[in-house]
Amino acid sequence: MKLEEAVKNIEPASKEWFNIAGDYLNNLAIPPGSLGELLDLARRLASMKETLKPSVQNKAVVTMAGDHGVVEEGVSAFPQEVTLQMVGNFAAGGASINALAEAAGANVIVVDMGAAGDLDDFAREGKILSRRAGSGTGNMAKGPAMSREQAERALETGIEIAGALVHKGVNLLGTGDMGIGNTTPSSAILAAFSGYPAYRVAGRGTGLNDEALENKARVIEKALDANKPDPADPVDVLAKVGGFEIGGIAGVILGAAYHKVPVVVDGFISSAGALLAKGLAPQSVDYMIASHLSHEYGHRFMLEELGLRPLLDLNLRLGEGTGAALAMNLVESAAQVINKVLTFQDAGVSKNEEPGVQGA
Amino acid sequence: MKLEEAVKNIEPASKEWFNIAGDYLNNLAIPPGSLGELLDLARRLASMKETLKPSVQNKAVVTMAGDHGVVEEGVSAFPQEVTLQMVGNFAAGGASINALAEAAGANVIVVDMGAAGDLDDFAREGKILSRRAGSGTGNMAKGPAMSREQAERALETGIEIAGALVHKGVNLLGTGDMGIGNTTPSSAILAAFSGYPAYRVAGRGTGLNDEALENKARVIEKALDANKPDPADPVDVLAKVGGFEIGGIAGVILGAAYHKVPVVVDGFISSAGALLAKGLAPQSVDYMIASHLSHEYGHRFMLEELGLRPLLDLNLRLGEGTGAALAMNLVESAAQVINKVLTFQDAGVSKNEEPGVQGA
Repeated sequence: MKLEEAVKNIEPASKEWFNIAGDYLNNLAIPPGSLGELLDLARRLASMKETLKPSVQNKAVVTMAGDHGVVEEGVSAFPQEVTLQMVGNFAAGGASINALAEAAGANVIVVDMGAAGDLDDFAREGKILSRRAGSGTGNMAKGPAMSREQAERALETGIEIAGALVHKGVNLLGTGDMGIGNTTPSSAILAAFSGYPAYRVAGRGTGLNDEALENKARVIEKALDANKPDPADPVDVLAKVGGFEIGGIAGVILGAAYHKVPVVVDGFISSAGALLAKGLAPQSVDYMIASHLSHEYGHRFMLEELGLRPLLDLNLRLGEGTGAALAMNLVESAAQVINKVLTFQDAGVSKNEEPGVQGA
Repeated sequence: MKLEEAVKNIEPASKEWFNIAGDYLNNLAIPPGSLGELLDLARRLASMKETLKPSVQNKAVVTMAGDHGVVEEGVSAFPQEVTLQMVGNFAAGGASINALAEAAGANVIVVDMGAAGDLDDFAREGKILSRRAGSGTGNMAKGPAMSREQAERALETGIEIAGALVHKGVNLLGTGDMGIGNTTPSSAILAAFSGYPAYRVAGRGTGLNDEALENKARVIEKALDANKPDPADPVDVLAKVGGFEIGGIAGVILGAAYHKVPVVVDGFISSAGALLAKGLAPQSVDYMIASHLSHEYGHRFMLEELGLRPLLDLNLRLGEGTGAALAMNLVESAAQVINKVLTFQDAGVSKNEEPGVQGA
């Protein structure tokens, strides 16, 4: 599907079902509001799926991999070959995302969006999808990370993958990433949309020391100065200071929203994808569920820009989709509440009727 | 098992396995520490179970019900018969705990510890266990809630139920409660152990207004003045200002610790049980996992007294074991991490070797 067509056809979640679900949930045989944010989430699910019986049991996490030319500026402590090695680890089932997706009952779909090396063996074995928009991005400190055509291709790939999964019956999507150096473009995307200075959006990634962190902020500033990404044109932002996997993630989110399927957004990198998706189609935010607040410093600002409150705060900073997988259990629990819990009337339980007291 | 025997034989979790697991987890093919609190939890599980492959898949939530004479002081907005009605709802499978336990893959064991009414039909049908230590407690504002013998019986019942479940193969326990009015004795237990004044530990329960909240604080103060519970003698605290289900919960926690099985503690009422367990056997805290921070005001002080950090903060204030069920998924995910994620060496992934930089 073409990007423009998808974006044009994303509808906001249903206000009518939001209200219907609110009334229904107020009548569950529990003290009013006593399941807190689980009720808010149940209500959002009903509003996305336009039903009081939302199903989210068929889960998939899409983990997008890509490499980044900007690593030559010393922005990451891990060598670039780790992207390829970790994709191998995903394919072998030995990574954190495999373990946590199994606990969530979710499939993991690993996509090579443009790693800097050969992953064809894994693709031939059916362990990963090869949807390369390039072979590592260009160094954004010196010029655009990719062409506008590559950016559109990355977005459309994500939309198509989400669509194919939904057609196979998936009713809860999650996003994830792998790409050495990808907190740097993610920070630049946040800076482009928010206007925040580089030092405010740069974080320690997988563990930079103070000196390396200062260098990273300078590199982000250089990339913004050299490219001048236009926040009114999210494809331009992605092309100039983004990454192939980040474009893919944005596409998965847009595809989920197009199909009215909730999408659990992982941490810092996935939220950069979410910012691109919001820029392209603001109503897509209605389908996003923020999984967790990352330990990565700038993530709180991304969530503020998105207007989303995270479900978890466990000091995670791994990526891969691990936070999304963890939060999927909570999403399923919220769906269980609206699907299974009886109302006061059906359960034969007395409501509080004393005036002035709203309910031990 | 006698209370004294159980308490005497609870061992602290293994320091040796805590260290072994720490070293092992530091070598997983992830940036150091990047799975945050999930790693801390995995390490604790290894230390409790004395293995690098802790299993927590056989889960049970024990939901203890009881009634409270103190409701005649107007401390709850819901009528007392709701305890019986909600136990009926648990037995029918239509309550929040049923829905959330199903999502967690956990069984729910409902125990009548002393409701003020007849639940024998449900017990005869095998839907609940009848282990009554009384028929509703006495009004603690006027005298002790129960006798010392009843308090010991409630504790021993919990220990026995935990033991029976462990012998059936349960390897992850959770606690829950049902009892109209039971935030009042829970607040009194917190006050007895912490020395905090009543107004600091009293909360709105299921939704008291300002006036009712002030009354509740006064009732708690009256109960403490009338009974003078001795914090050095937790059985005395339970007898004077506790509840049958709170004693049962404390017993489940002690039983879990005795068998070296992790126990996920629900919210405010369950944490009052945890305070009693800690008072009786301080080393039992090693086996407790705090599921969530309740919306109920005094819960933060309970967690401080216990020295536990909650996994979730979702504004829950329902009880029943709902928070424990929700958090069980996170406990299972932590176990998956230590069970399934490969080390750098086994995964063939390069470690960061640059000095001064600890890690994209």
